[in-house]
Formats: sequence, structure tokens, C-alpha cells
Amino acid sequence: MTLSEFQNLIKEKGYDAYIVTRNNMFLGQDILPEENRLRELSGFSGSAGNLLVFPDRAVLFVDGRYELQAAREVDAEKIQVVVTRETIATWLQNNIFDNLKIGYNAWCHSVSETDYWNRVLKRFNFIEDKENLLNIRPSDKKCEIFEHDVKYAGVSMDEKISMLVPYIQKNKCDAYFLAACDSVSWLLNLRSDCLPDTPILRAFALISADGEVSLFANDFSKLGEELAKYNGKNIGMAYNNTPRAVFSLMKEQNIWIENLANPILLWKAVKNPVELDNLRKAHRRDAVALCRFLHWLDHNWQNKTELDVVEKLHDFRRRGENFFSNSFETIAGFAQNGAVVHYQPSQATNLPLSEGSLLLLDSGAQYYDGTTDITRTIAIGTPTQDMIDDFTLVLKAHIALASAVFPEGTSGQALDILARSQLWQRGKDYNHGTGHGVGFFLNVHEGPQNISSRSSQTPFQPGMVTSVEPGYYKENCYGIRIENLVETIDAGFETPMFCFRPLTLVPLDKRLMNKYLLTEQEIEWVNGYHRRVWTEISPLLENAELQSWLKKACAPL
Amino acid sequence: MTLSEFQNLIKEKGYDAYIVTRNNMFLGQDILPEENRLRELSGFSGSAGNLLVFPDRAVLFVDGRYELQAAREVDAEKIQVVVTRETIATWLQNNIFDNLKIGYNAWCHSVSETDYWNRVLKRFNFIEDKENLLNIRPSDKKCEIFEHDVKYAGVSMDEKISMLVPYIQKNKCDAYFLAACDSVSWLLNLRSDCLPDTPILRAFALISADGEVSLFANDFSKLGEELAKYNGKNIGMAYNNTPRAVFSLMKEQNIWIENLANPILLWKAVKNPVELDNLRKAHRRDAVALCRFLHWLDHNWQNKTELDVVEKLHDFRRRGENFFSNSFETIAGFAQNGAVVHYQPSQATNLPLSEGSLLLLDSGAQYYDGTTDITRTIAIGTPTQDMIDDFTLVLKAHIALASAVFPEGTSGQALDILARSQLWQRGKDYNHGTGHGVGFFLNVHEGPQNISSRSSQTPFQPGMVTSVEPGYYKENCYGIRIENLVETIDAGFETPMFCFRPLTLVPLDKRLMNKYLLTEQEIEWVNGYHRRVWTEISPLLENAELQSWLKKACAPL
Repeated sequence: MTLSEFQNLIKEKGYDAYIVTRNNMFLGQDILPEENRLRELSGFSGSAGNLLVFPDRAVLFVDGRYELQAAREVDAEKIQVVVTRETIATWLQNNIFDNLKIGYNAWCHSVSETDYWNRVLKRFNFIEDKENLLNIRPSDKKCEIFEHDVKYAGVSMDEKISMLVPYIQKNKCDAYFLAACDSVSWLLNLRSDCLPDTPILRAFALISADGEVSLFANDFSKLGEELAKYNGKNIGMAYNNTPRAVFSLMKEQNIWIENLANPILLWKAVKNPVELDNLRKAHRRDAVALCRFLHWLDHNWQNKTELDVVEKLHDFRRRGENFFSNSFETIAGFAQNGAVVHYQPSQATNLPLSEGSLLLLDSGAQYYDGTTDITRTIAIGTPTQDMIDDFTLVLKAHIALASAVFPEGTSGQALDILARSQLWQRGKDYNHGTGHGVGFFLNVHEGPQNISSRSSQTPFQPGMVTSVEPGYYKENCYGIRIENLVETIDAGFETPMFCFRPLTLVPLDKRLMNKYLLTEQEIEWVNGYHRRVWTEISPLLENAELQSWLKKACAPL
Repeated sequence: MTLSEFQNLIKEKGYDAYIVTRNNMFLGQDILPEENRLRELSGFSGSAGNLLVFPDRAVLFVDGRYELQAAREVDAEKIQVVVTRETIATWLQNNIFDNLKIGYNAWCHSVSETDYWNRVLKRFNFIEDKENLLNIRPSDKKCEIFEHDVKYAGVSMDEKISMLVPYIQKNKCDAYFLAACDSVSWLLNLRSDCLPDTPILRAFALISADGEVSLFANDFSKLGEELAKYNGKNIGMAYNNTPRAVFSLMKEQNIWIENLANPILLWKAVKNPVELDNLRKAHRRDAVALCRFLHWLDHNWQNKTELDVVEKLHDFRRRGENFFSNSFETIAGFAQNGAVVHYQPSQATNLPLSEGSLLLLDSGAQYYDGTTDITRTIAIGTPTQDMIDDFTLVLKAHIALASAVFPEGTSGQALDILARSQLWQRGKDYNHGTGHGVGFFLNVHEGPQNISSRSSQTPFQPGMVTSVEPGYYKENCYGIRIENLVETIDAGFETPMFCFRPLTLVPLDKRLMNKYLLTEQEIEWVNGYHRRVWTEISPLLENAELQSWLKKACAPL
């Protein structure tokens, strides 16, 4: 459907406006291209955004990451782009003073979100679009569902269900409705090949108080039937991550609904010892692929493009044991393309690598034994002093956070400034968060913990896996980001204090470091990190030439 | 009144419990000793605390600063001490499950606080004690009220009122009731000698929409008469800082009350150019007194006690121009007394200074042209390596915060960790905030900005004056704190970025610095600070011996 077709449709149906999100019913999860109504209508291909469609115009809301990309992708005559961290609700509140009738698809918005609209935006009339004008439904694609072996997951499905059952019972519910499909995948140790980069099973689950599980993957008519069995009973679910449509179905069955937090969020964020052991292995394997790639790049960058880089890296990775897929579309941004924060090369934008700039390379893999995510910024040819100094600044930011020690109870909201303040010292900043939680053979972005000045306040716990990824982006010139995944570990003091330990073990480009801007402690951090990389990765490289490349890359500053 | 007498009284009146605070009706302001019902009943002399009195027991709530002091001061058989950042309300919620009838004095609690009790703690019945069982009233002490000359204040009373009038009118009120007496003092450029260390005028003000001001200092019967003129009209006031009793008086007059923030909080926090110029002078004058004192101490500490130190310092200060009073009771904590965070020496605790420990000295002055607050930690004799290393750690924390650069919109809540994380690196911490706003010839503690992980989110603005005061306290051994006042200034980048500039110009004790624990940048900060101290303070010292003392104290590391 085109934007104009949809605008005609909503006009015909009597809506003054209609809210279109990038979500399908699996709120907050990746979607398949054919499910992306936001892109279909607006042309915007970023991973987050909302479109408010009026009969005669439209407004696209994106966050700072996507400022440049949105401007490039949408037709400015038809769609106004608003760069904001605000929600559609706040924008409506502050910008629209008429009493609009606003449509939305109840499968694409959570109970909390729609409750909020109804509570705060009283001058608007929000209407559940029961006709499904946008034809929201799971793709027809045939997917393979498979078990995630307990040798990887560490804990069996039965054990996991036996953690959940007491929670349901304690809260006096007859069942728990789990709409978060990454939690469903974790609980049942099931995965699927449906999405290209995220092996989640796309399904809802209803878990009864005695531990029976019903799964709903495609056929949502069965959901209504199953819910009918709970007529007059209590079901718990997390309002902030369950579609409004499920709530409405339950209400039709006179079910008592309780807003009950999803406890799996925290359970799966804290990796178990088997998962941690697996993860460390997966990261070493990923490091081998990266080292092979970086060695290749050093000798072969001439006449190569960003897309060549993406392909070659994938090539090195997929040869590794337990490789399943990439964990997201590789970001290979050369020179000015690197300044587009979440740039992904396409035929239209593909730049050849050339002497004297930076390649920002953000990539990761899904291995059965763990998910990786790494960003390296690599000098192509001889970098300028500005590039070196800016890289060194981002390195200082990375080290400040990566080497933090902090007491129990500290959240990523407090820690964010440790990285950012290094850039602030030079009047610089970056317009994205500093880190995100990472799933285990699941989503590469996974809460509840993350590192950002405006993020959740979930405190770090030992076993959590998080990215540390400050950056700096010089518009029209280059982008820099340094990202490692780290595990939270006990810092070894008498009182409960934690710190981070890198899981990612790939050399940082020393050609981009200005030693004179680093403190002794920072130099020691770099050297210590490289010592560890050398010790753990060199035995895995059979090739003598590769080993000598790594030895040089890991030599002390 | 003794605790048992009061317990008998509340039993007789039918209360199950009664809330006693340290406040009088000037909520959150200093009080006179004779007004301190909390101390009268419990023996606790700290500057913040609450007592929940039951007929047969009592619970004293204090924050971390007062943990040791409270344990020392109260009779543990009669009073249980709870160290918490929580409110009485939270404690009641979590600990008392009976439906109690709880009395309180409506002059001592804000509208917000009592609203909160009634809203959240539904199982209790909170009763305004109209009999005033604790006899809460302003002291009978005769006070002198005087004008604060505009040559100090920078802006006249008329100009200030003409800032407030449009605010009242814009909010469609017929008057504004100002209960915050520091705001009243600022607005009217009036001061008083009523409190020993804080020259505020203790009064409420009612400002009409056309700028007429009525003051209520002692005779609150007049307040009722004045309010009668507003029968049926609108009055604005800040619920969080106005006594419940005022609200009740207005309700009796059928006044429409609007919860309207006090705009003076921010106006007086951002010092005007005249105030800033005055402040810099006052701080140089204070530095001269401190230098004279430190020089004296170096040569005369033998056979002196903490109380001698307090007296001598006061002596040096009061000789300075424009001196009005100390700005709070001097904290002179030697050795283990320094580990009691807000210790003030008394005859009972007074320690003699002796070889090989630390003196923590936190003091300040009220000058007509500004308020000072400074903490120096001074080696008495030869310090141990632990003392030196711990001092150096606190110095690193101080420098990390004092040299921060941060964008517009950053609050002290975000910045706090910059100081604290330095101690965390060594598994250490301090149990108090890192900084507080400072008034101008007003309260030495004054919001809205401050620096603490749990503080207000008021962003810093150029012209704000704030303390930077990380510490470290080794129980039964010594205390360390390094405190300067700093002004927020523009950092000189293209985008609005701010930084701090010290107002306090007194040498830091180099005998306590381990140079090998400092980075080059930190050493340069110390040397740069001392260069500035030497340049600005040495011309003010006529005595050659003093100058040579300062020269040595300010020599580079």
C-alpha cells in the first residue's frame, strides 16, 4: 500500500489520523521485511520509528540515531520528519489542539501504551481499528522451529517452568500470558529460523498455574478458544509488553487481568554458568573470525567496497563452529558513511575504501553457544591527526566505563556519564546510548539493563552481558565507535562491588591511538587487554602469518 | 518536656503515635535551640531527623551522616534508631500493620507531606493536633531585622517584586503565599540576626498580584486576618514547602488554593553579576583568614584541642571586613572524631591534637558580600601512608568532579558518580552527598541544585554556586573531606557546555598527596589551582612570613 492509498483509506473510514508503528504483534521484536508497514508507507528503513498519518500529510518520528537516514529516505514533501526522544503521545499533546479521532491497530500497541493515550490525551478519541486496515499479521513464511540444546542453554525447559510456576501461584493467578517472544524462547528452550538475524521463536505462550504451556505462533483464533477456558478466572500479564488486542480478547471472556511483571526478563539477563562458559568460547571463536578478517583487510582493502567488507566478514564468521547467522545487519560505514550512526551499506550508498579515512565496522553473530556484537574502527591507509585524536578520545571513554567499579544497586543510568564525560571534556558527545544488554542466542539487544542517561534503572548483577560502545561522529567526515561486550563480575572487595570483564577479545587499532593523550592507567588497560587477546586467541590461529599479525596488533603501546 | 511526659500526654489524648520533627513552622530552615523539640524529647542533636513517638516506645529516623552520632546520643532502651534515607511514611507502610491514629503538628509539615500520608497510608488516621501539644511557636527572642544593601545584593527589592508580579498574574492568582523564608529574605533584601549562623528573616510573605507585600514574622493571628481579605479568591503557594496549617487557614476562608512552584528558588540560585563579584571578594577574604589559621596551626598545634581550633579560626575570620557570623557550627574532627561525618566538638568529645593523624576542618562564614563553606583536611605531625593514600583518593574524586565539563541540562544527579567512582575503584565510598547549593548571605545549604545520586534533577546554570565535597571516613581512625565552593561557568565551546570554577582559594595539604597515585592531568589541576591561590591571595597577605608559608604551600607538586 502507498501512503496516498492509506490516506484515502483512513479518510474513507472517518479517521482524522492513524498511528503506524514498525511493530507487528510481537512488540519490540525484529520483523520481517514484508511485515514492515512503516517502511511500506514512508520509505524509512530504520529499526525504530513511528508514523502519524493524517489524510493530507504525515509525520515520521525517529530518534537521534536516524536523523540523517530519515532525511535521506523519506519524501519531504509528503512526510515531515521529527527527531525526538519523545513519544507520539507527547507530540500530539504539544502540537495538536483539535479533538481528533485517531485509529490504531490493537495488535501493534501494548496495553500500557494505549492506556496512557486514553488517560493523558483526553482530548483525542483513540479507536481500536478492528478492520485491520494495515493487514497486520505474521508473515506466511514457513519457519523451522528447533530445540536449543541444554548443553548450550544450561538449564532445561522443565527447570525453567518450575521457576515460573511458583511466581504464578504466589500472585494468585490461574495462568500467566507471556507475549514477549524472547522470553517464550528462553522459557521453552526453543528457537526458530524465521527472522534473518534473531533466532527467536515468534510465539505467545499461556502458562497455567500447574505448568501446562500453550503456544500461539500463527493461528491466533486458537488464542480466543484457549482463553475461553479461563472465563471468570485470573490471568497475569505484563501490560507494557502485551498487545492491547490480547487484553480485549480476555475482557470478552470476563477474565480478571492482573498487570504482573515478566520475571523472565531478569532471569534470562543473568546468564547461568553454562551459558557464561559457552559465551566465552563463542567470543573466542568470533575473535578468530575478526582477526582473520582484519588481517585480510590490512592487505586487501584496495579496490574493495563496504559491501565487500560485509561479505568477507560474513565469510570468515560462517566458517566457525556453531555459527547460525549474523546477529544483525552488518554496519560497515566508510568515511562519511560512518557518521550515519546506524548506517547499513546498500548498492545505492556503497563506498569504495580509499586511502586516509576510517572504516566503522559494527557486526555480530548468533552462535548456538552465544550471541556476539562488536564494533571496531579501522584506519584505512594513513589516518589524519584529527581521526587519531578523536579515536583516542572514544577509547578513553570506552576505558573509563569498561574499567569502572561500582557497588551493588548501580544502574547503567548512573554509569553512562563515565564514558560520555570524556567526550564532554572536548565539547563533544554522541547521540546514542552507551550500552545495551545482549541475549543468549536470542536478541542482540535485550534488556532490562542497559547504559544510557535516560534508561531503565535495573541494577547490574554478576552474569549480565552488556555492550560498552561510546562513539563519536563527525558529520560528512567519519564515524568512530569502540564496542566490546562485557560480563558483570564481582570486583573482589569485602562489600558487594561489581566490575566489567570483556568477553570480546579482538585487538583495537593502535594506529589510531595517540599515546600522549592517554594516562598511564589507560595505556595499561590497552596493554592488559591486548595481552589477554594474545594469550587467549593466538593459540586458536594455526597460520603463522596470522599469528605474527596478531602479535604485532597486540604489542604494548 | 521529657519523652515519658510526652508519651503520657499523647496516651491521654488518645493518639496511638505522634510524629515529631526537628522543624518549626519555617520548614527546612535552621531552628533555635529552644525550638528543637526533637532534641528535647530524644537527646539527638543532629541537623535532620524525625521521631515517631508511641505511648511505650519511640523510633528515631536519621540519615547515614548521623549513624554514629545518634547511637551515641540517644537512650537505646527507650528509643530505637533507624538509619535510613526513607521517610517515616515508608517505614510506617512497611513496619506497622495496625490502623493507628497518628497525631502531628500541622505547622511543622508541608501540605505535600501530609497529602502524601493521607493518600498513600490509608490504613492510618492522621490527625492535625490543634491543641499544639508540643507548643510549637517561634522563639520569643528579640531579633534585629536589617536591610541587605543593594551594593551586596545587586538587585533591589522593587526589581525583584517586579519579577514576581507577572508570575502571579500569569498564573491567574490574586496573591502568592511565600512560606520559604530564605525566599522571603531574598525577595525583600531583608535579613535578621535571629539564628546564630544563618541571617535569614524568619517570616512568611503574602504578595498580592499588584505587588503589595504583607509580612508575618511572629504574630500568626494577623495571618488569619489578612487571609480573610482573600475570601473566595485565588492564592498560589508551593505545597511542598508550605505548612499544612496555612492551607487549613485558607480553606477556612474559602480561598481557592493553587499548588504553584516557588520561582524564587531558581532566581536566587543563579547569582547575579554583582553577587558573583562580591562572592569572589568574600572568598578571597575568607582565604586570607584560612591561610593565617593554617600557618598558625602548623606552628602551634601542640597542646591544642579541637575547640581551640574552632575558636582560633573564628578569631581569624571575624577580623575580616564584612564578617557577620560563621555560616554553620564549625566541624573540627581530629583523628577518630573526623570519621563522625557531621561531628561538632563539645566539651565531652573534645580531643587534643596529637602527632600523626588528621584534622578534618569544615567551616564557613557569612559575610555581607557572600557565604563561604570550606573543608580542609590537615596533617597533624607525620601522617601514615594509609592517610596519604586515602587523602589522595579523595583528592582524585574532588578533581574528577571539579574539572568536569558537561552539556546544558546536566544535573548533579548525573555528575555525582564522577567523584564517587574514584573511591569505588578502591572498594571505598562515602555516606553523604557530594555537593549542595549555597545561598548568598543566606543558607549555606540551599537548593534547588545539588550533587548526589538521589538528588533533585535541577540542571546546572552559569552563576549557580555549589560545593564539591567528596570524603572518606575510616571508622575509629580518621575522616577526610575536601570541599571547595565552585561557580558554574560556560565552558567556551560552540554548543552550550558548562564547567566549574573554584571560588574557594585555600591551599590543599600537599603533605597528604601521593604524587604517584595522581595522573599528569590531576597533578596539573593541583598545580594550577595552587598557582591561582598564590596569584590571588598572596597580595592580600602583608606579613612576609605568611607569604613565604603560602609560597611553600602553593609550590608545584
